[in-house]
Amino acid sequence: MNAPTTLSHLVPEIQPREVPPALIEALQSRFGAQCSTALAVREQHGRDESSFQAPPPAAVVFAESTRDVADAVRLAGQHEVPVIPFGVGSSLEGHLLAVQGGISIDVSRMNKVLSVNAEDLTVTVQPGVTRKQLNEEIRSTGLFFPIDPGADASLGGMAATRASGTNAVRYGTMRENVLGLEVVTASGEAIRTGTRAKKSSAGYDLTRLFVGSEGTLGVITEVTLRLYPIPEAISAAICSFPSIEAAVRATIQVIQLGVPIARVELIDQNTVRMVNAHSKLGLRIEPMLLMEFHGSPAGVKEQAETVQEIASEFGGNAFEWATTPEERTRLWTARHNAYFAAIQSRPGCRAISTDTCVPISRLADCLLDSVKEADESGIPYFLVGHVGDGNFHFGYLLDPNDPKEREIAEGLNHKLVARALSLEGTCTGEHGVGLHKMGFLVTEAGAGAVEMMRTIKRALDPRNIMNPGKIFSL
Amino acid sequence: MNAPTTLSHLVPEIQPREVPPALIEALQSRFGAQCSTALAVREQHGRDESSFQAPPPAAVVFAESTRDVADAVRLAGQHEVPVIPFGVGSSLEGHLLAVQGGISIDVSRMNKVLSVNAEDLTVTVQPGVTRKQLNEEIRSTGLFFPIDPGADASLGGMAATRASGTNAVRYGTMRENVLGLEVVTASGEAIRTGTRAKKSSAGYDLTRLFVGSEGTLGVITEVTLRLYPIPEAISAAICSFPSIEAAVRATIQVIQLGVPIARVELIDQNTVRMVNAHSKLGLRIEPMLLMEFHGSPAGVKEQAETVQEIASEFGGNAFEWATTPEERTRLWTARHNAYFAAIQSRPGCRAISTDTCVPISRLADCLLDSVKEADESGIPYFLVGHVGDGNFHFGYLLDPNDPKEREIAEGLNHKLVARALSLEGTCTGEHGVGLHKMGFLVTEAGAGAVEMMRTIKRALDPRNIMNPGKIFSL
Repeated sequence: MNAPTTLSHLVPEIQPREVPPALIEALQSRFGAQCSTALAVREQHGRDESSFQAPPPAAVVFAESTRDVADAVRLAGQHEVPVIPFGVGSSLEGHLLAVQGGISIDVSRMNKVLSVNAEDLTVTVQPGVTRKQLNEEIRSTGLFFPIDPGADASLGGMAATRASGTNAVRYGTMRENVLGLEVVTASGEAIRTGTRAKKSSAGYDLTRLFVGSEGTLGVITEVTLRLYPIPEAISAAICSFPSIEAAVRATIQVIQLGVPIARVELIDQNTVRMVNAHSKLGLRIEPMLLMEFHGSPAGVKEQAETVQEIASEFGGNAFEWATTPEERTRLWTARHNAYFAAIQSRPGCRAISTDTCVPISRLADCLLDSVKEADESGIPYFLVGHVGDGNFHFGYLLDPNDPKEREIAEGLNHKLVARALSLEGTCTGEHGVGLHKMGFLVTEAGAGAVEMMRTIKRALDPRNIMNPGKIFSL
Repeated sequence: MNAPTTLSHLVPEIQPREVPPALIEALQSRFGAQCSTALAVREQHGRDESSFQAPPPAAVVFAESTRDVADAVRLAGQHEVPVIPFGVGSSLEGHLLAVQGGISIDVSRMNKVLSVNAEDLTVTVQPGVTRKQLNEEIRSTGLFFPIDPGADASLGGMAATRASGTNAVRYGTMRENVLGLEVVTASGEAIRTGTRAKKSSAGYDLTRLFVGSEGTLGVITEVTLRLYPIPEAISAAICSFPSIEAAVRATIQVIQLGVPIARVELIDQNTVRMVNAHSKLGLRIEPMLLMEFHGSPAGVKEQAETVQEIASEFGGNAFEWATTPEERTRLWTARHNAYFAAIQSRPGCRAISTDTCVPISRLADCLLDSVKEADESGIPYFLVGHVGDGNFHFGYLLDPNDPKEREIAEGLNHKLVARALSLEGTCTGEHGVGLHKMGFLVTEAGAGAVEMMRTIKRALDPRNIMNPGKIFSL
């Protein structure tokens, strides 16, 4: 796989289907004020955090119930018009763009926590509940939902993209933490998948089929999630390293030893510099690991000692520790503000994020060569990583008015993905395929596996109305 | 759901398709001595550990490579003849029976550990490798594969049935521990699913679709699994309780507190009595929990103290502890020998096993009423359970020559499943649907979800040749 020589693959294929006035009328008649065709509303629903552009959807339906979703899907289906589910709009890969036209189904008003089963460590929520909202609402139970992709994303959207983030190294991803779903299928029927039992061998794993299907098989209308007891003790630490390699090799050893670390995040020295400027911090301009340990007081102490020992072997120093929530928040400032600090470091820029994930032993190989290439390119970038999972993100900071920069950045990403795949990794650890990685998916999974995905899609959505044009072309 | 009044639903529907002599000739020509039509071989491949019966397959192909599997599937497909994958034959639900005729593809000779990636905690094996074989072959790496369904099952079969067992409470099931697969599809093509990366959002989760698909979508020809460091410290304990309820309530509290217990198994007093007789043990004739703790020495100590405290609150006593492998094995004798001890307690009997799994808070409700019903029925039984997961098994010990007993036992199971479903549980925690639970699956998942499974099956296997007649009827 070589760097692209043209931009053609970077521009999404725009093939809007006709949206007949009869559909708009039917939606307005059924939904009244819950249906909007105002340009500003449509435009807001026709974009996400990616840098792609497409004409906005023809209408936005603000669903307030599963019935609303089902009716909207059925009406759209009668006219063979696409439907695109919308949560909070935090997708990074163009999932929300109406590349084949259609209507947006906004589920943000479906934001109720339906039932908390604290004694079973489960909760059932509507898809528009965000992860922060959930954790606030369940705080009194002593439980929490650990998946933290950074953005305060909707849980429906997180399920749809198989999201994960900083806590995944210990608690897994949406794949492991969704117990069951309610989904409106392409025919407008609501089905349930899974039960509240912790495990089951009852037939095909439809739950896992919908988790990560990016809205292409159905609209998620309820999510049942696993919760965890808030750890008795939580301890956070930051530690500087003489090189990215040293930080990564320390991480690899922590994981290989089976230390149940809850978070281990890398920030490179570029990003430390940006964060220092943005948040008025005085962090050493060196690559840094941010870590968190969850467990009993004795367990946390033991983990922390082990990790400190390993870090020291690799030249880690300037350890800072925090145990109270306030101190922990302060330590994590650098990580939480990295994106905004980076964006502000180059006024007017847009970030394109990479998302490769490789087996942990290959992390240094994958990362170090890509750092070298990024440095040589001259493109400013930030680098953060859920390194305990082998997952990291370069954020290339581009002048949106300079197509050359974009071409260079996409070339860097191409090389990075090719490298990750040659190291038995994946082109996307947690952001999804969307519009951006359709070509990479074929290289990664093989034509036969992608054809199997298409066969499933065609069988379950014969009119191709569920978020068409994402993951693969049909 | 009422107890059945006839046995009709217990007899699998036998609809053998014609196996043309041309296919047998083609198989013999392609496979030579690797293809057998000897009656004894066919009969051995036409049954499993279930109590169902069907005519044996027309031939058995002993595959030695993915190519062999692909060729066998392709040849069978040309004649629209079913193929049934066979590992070691330990299915409990009739998965291996040739209810629609066809040929058996025995993968037990595909028993190589292909690559151990100790530094990534992954291993790739052929499907005929058994779990014990795997653990023996990787012992020197300091890693182990935790999933332990009791039988020394093949890893391909364990993936196909989404198996779990005693360690699942801590390490998860095959759902969580399969990273990727190679599968021969209905068209005879080999595809790969997943990568060795720990997480991925790259398209539909085909890995999870095949895990638990019971051979109905393809034949698994390679499995990539997660491994874990052998814990620094392992400690085991047994503890007697005054009642099943006390043992179960202690377990519920352990789980709700988030204690990372590695195993917590229930044995009822019937079974203790059987094991005492079979293995010449002197265990108290009381319900018993068997537990195992994995971690650092301090962590294990801490877990054990917490659990001992909880157990004592519920009247747990007669604690016995073991830390060396030999002592642990001795303590676990009761659990390991439960099945055989039970079978021998009633010479000539056959066991029918239940497999419900419910949310942990519902475990006592589900279990205690069913114990009462089983006691009142007069049918001898044993009762063991992976209670930390809410999963347990009654084994009804039946006189195979007395249809009345079978009817009573199936009636007990019907009531138990109905109860588990009303408590938001599943009819099968780990054994799979097979022939036995097709009716239960519709009640559990709903007609719409089962129709979605059928739609996927039809799309991926249009000639219905992959282990047809299992999970659902088409």
